[in-house]
Amino acid sequence: MSNSAYGQKAPAEARAMMRGGVNAPTAGACDGYVQANLVVLPRTFAYDFLVFCYRNPKPCPLLDVTDQGSPETRLARGADLRTDLPKYRVYENGAFAREVTAIADYWSHDLVAFLLGCSYTFEAALLAAGVPVRHIEQGTIVPMYTTSIWCVPAGVFAGPIVATMRPIPHELVPRAVQVTSRYPNVHGAPIHIGDPMRIGVDLERTEYGGQVSALREGETPVFWACGVTPQAVAIASRIPFMITHAPGHMFITDVRNEHLAAF
Amino acid sequence: MSNSAYGQKAPAEARAMMRGGVNAPTAGACDGYVQANLVVLPRTFAYDFLVFCYRNPKPCPLLDVTDQGSPETRLARGADLRTDLPKYRVYENGAFAREVTAIADYWSHDLVAFLLGCSYTFEAALLAAGVPVRHIEQGTIVPMYTTSIWCVPAGVFAGPIVATMRPIPHELVPRAVQVTSRYPNVHGAPIHIGDPMRIGVDLERTEYGGQVSALREGETPVFWACGVTPQAVAIASRIPFMITHAPGHMFITDVRNEHLAAF
Repeated sequence: MSNSAYGQKAPAEARAMMRGGVNAPTAGACDGYVQANLVVLPRTFAYDFLVFCYRNPKPCPLLDVTDQGSPETRLARGADLRTDLPKYRVYENGAFAREVTAIADYWSHDLVAFLLGCSYTFEAALLAAGVPVRHIEQGTIVPMYTTSIWCVPAGVFAGPIVATMRPIPHELVPRAVQVTSRYPNVHGAPIHIGDPMRIGVDLERTEYGGQVSALREGETPVFWACGVTPQAVAIASRIPFMITHAPGHMFITDVRNEHLAAF
Repeated sequence: MSNSAYGQKAPAEARAMMRGGVNAPTAGACDGYVQANLVVLPRTFAYDFLVFCYRNPKPCPLLDVTDQGSPETRLARGADLRTDLPKYRVYENGAFAREVTAIADYWSHDLVAFLLGCSYTFEAALLAAGVPVRHIEQGTIVPMYTTSIWCVPAGVFAGPIVATMRPIPHELVPRAVQVTSRYPNVHGAPIHIGDPMRIGVDLERTEYGGQVSALREGETPVFWACGVTPQAVAIASRIPFMITHAPGHMFITDVRNEHLAAF
């Protein structure tokens, strides 16, 4: 059962709905299929961004890079990245410019699209393994924090890792590490377990995401690198032009979650 | 015990020997440390090569990309990639030009160096797990074959996967898959198990490596993607200038093999 506007349609059908004008969030849509973050950059910046992703695989788990000027991806046959996401954000000179439901008008031969893994995939695996995920239970957005851990820089791209936090019952923390370790292409193992101040985080002060109820007795805060990192870094570098998916409005691929499992 | 000219010195000491003029092969040197393949390309071709590696992680497991013009790598503090390998090969317009023991004379601000994982790391893991490795027993080079499996192309780079073959006692084949699966950054799990003709290979006709004795009763041929692939593809694309390590003369990093294990 899903509350998603896309129900449990096949990914290609959900994408056709988006292309036809449906612009609802994708949480809960197409159970079992990988959803991806989108970053579109001019070719001039694509090389540095690619090196940045290589050097920082936990926050930037790259699933595909398109050929220059091509809106097609190997992750979804027949899909068009210019129309097949429900909502996009356009950034100019490092500032949010506008939200749009298609980017065909902005597309040019100069652009390269990057698709990055998203935590939806490993959250499905956590739930399947009996590890509770608080923000899903509470129907809110995962809390995200800028940490004091710096990414390895590459060219114009530099900045701190943004992390998501999930409170995990302490006896399930090792299991949570095991389960997410199987998915290196969707952020993989946690980057930190326990005392938030060790990575410069005050739990009361989320920066990007939602807020979950305070840690309960017996829970440990566990932090994973977050796909907001490359966007935050790209915005901070004030590159002249960038397009991303709108938060929560992801690209739905034809790839099954299990296909990303390391083994 | 090692027959290597570098004995069991620390990686930094072995690199200092190479910098000082020692140019022996690195097989068996610095037990437990990752050895890497080197590919140096002009910046113009580096982007396509990087995308190629991303799209073909099994034959092209990238461990590091240097900053443009920098001969330094994060994998070995204080190392200089222009002098700290025992032997290099220079290619011009797709043809082998010469073998040299340092590349300082060829270096320029325009160059980017790529370090790629090498099967030495997973062979150590196979041996530790009790899986015999024939070419090591026989003191020869692993046999390599051009397969009929094509890499996903990227820009100017396109070509077939080159694979290594190791004959494995059939009861140890599942274990060999498990052990090498732990090392996705050094080619990872096999690409094929069994009938060589399924991937277009005639075992009698090695193309790059050595020859091992014929399959013995009860052995299965197991194929892994090989780091020769990106070099073969780069040579075939006739790019104007490229430097690689000379076969068997690898870059020795400060990274321990176990550090590359997925988990």
